[in-house]
Amino acid sequence: MALNPQYEAIGKGFVQQYYALFDDPLQRPNLVNMYNIELSFMTFEGVQLQGSVKIMEKLNALSFQKINRIITAIDSQPMFDGGVLINVLGRLQADEDPPHAFSQVFVLKPLGNSFFVQHDIFRLGIHDTA
Amino acid sequence: MALNPQYEAIGKGFVQQYYALFDDPLQRPNLVNMYNIELSFMTFEGVQLQGSVKIMEKLNALSFQKINRIITAIDSQPMFDGGVLINVLGRLQADEDPPHAFSQVFVLKPLGNSFFVQHDIFRLGIHDTA
Repeated sequence: MALNPQYEAIGKGFVQQYYALFDDPLQRPNLVNMYNIELSFMTFEGVQLQGSVKIMEKLNALSFQKINRIITAIDSQPMFDGGVLINVLGRLQADEDPPHAFSQVFVLKPLGNSFFVQHDIFRLGIHDTA
Repeated sequence: MALNPQYEAIGKGFVQQYYALFDDPLQRPNLVNMYNIELSFMTFEGVQLQGSVKIMEKLNALSFQKINRIITAIDSQPMFDGGVLINVLGRLQADEDPPHAFSQVFVLKPLGNSFFVQHDIFRLGIHDTA
């Protein structure tokens, strides 16, 4: 499969759609449709999970009700299997927690006319002060 | 090709090796060996480059002499083509600039007994204050 020339629009569209679901506690369970039952990997703050069941256990256990999210940058690249690599940089505030920078990497894998999230790495930008 | 069970060690080893070259102005030109002449993509602060020649033009044009770098987290995942996805979060200070958070994503693609960098996305963590 060749490089998808629409990678930029696919990346931006996916990020918008993903966080619209993620940031709404009522919609968050629908993220299950973004992941594959077996072939999806997530690393969430260093915790490694495989498959949509374990990934959704993690995401559904997040207890905050309100997320204030600002996207600073979305960088996408086409991949040689027709997928899209996406790096998101932003800031978020969950409920009344202090705001934090975050980075999230997605690899979208083509499946039929759509994509699923094959790889997902999330990190809050909390750095040791040295 | 199957998932490489050594992905964690490969990710950590690569990051150490990459920044040892990057952070030394005398060694930085040797990064050319990490990229493919045609099949490597880099997005550097939003600027998209393809192929080792253009990538090295960009990296060799960086004028700082001294980088103080602290790695906060390295998250790696195995990919289904035998490659490794790596997300690095850290802070860096170039010469006497103020220190900044950064994130860098690499996709390592297997080639013979080694890997090359197929995808590279670099961003400083500079957020609009809203």
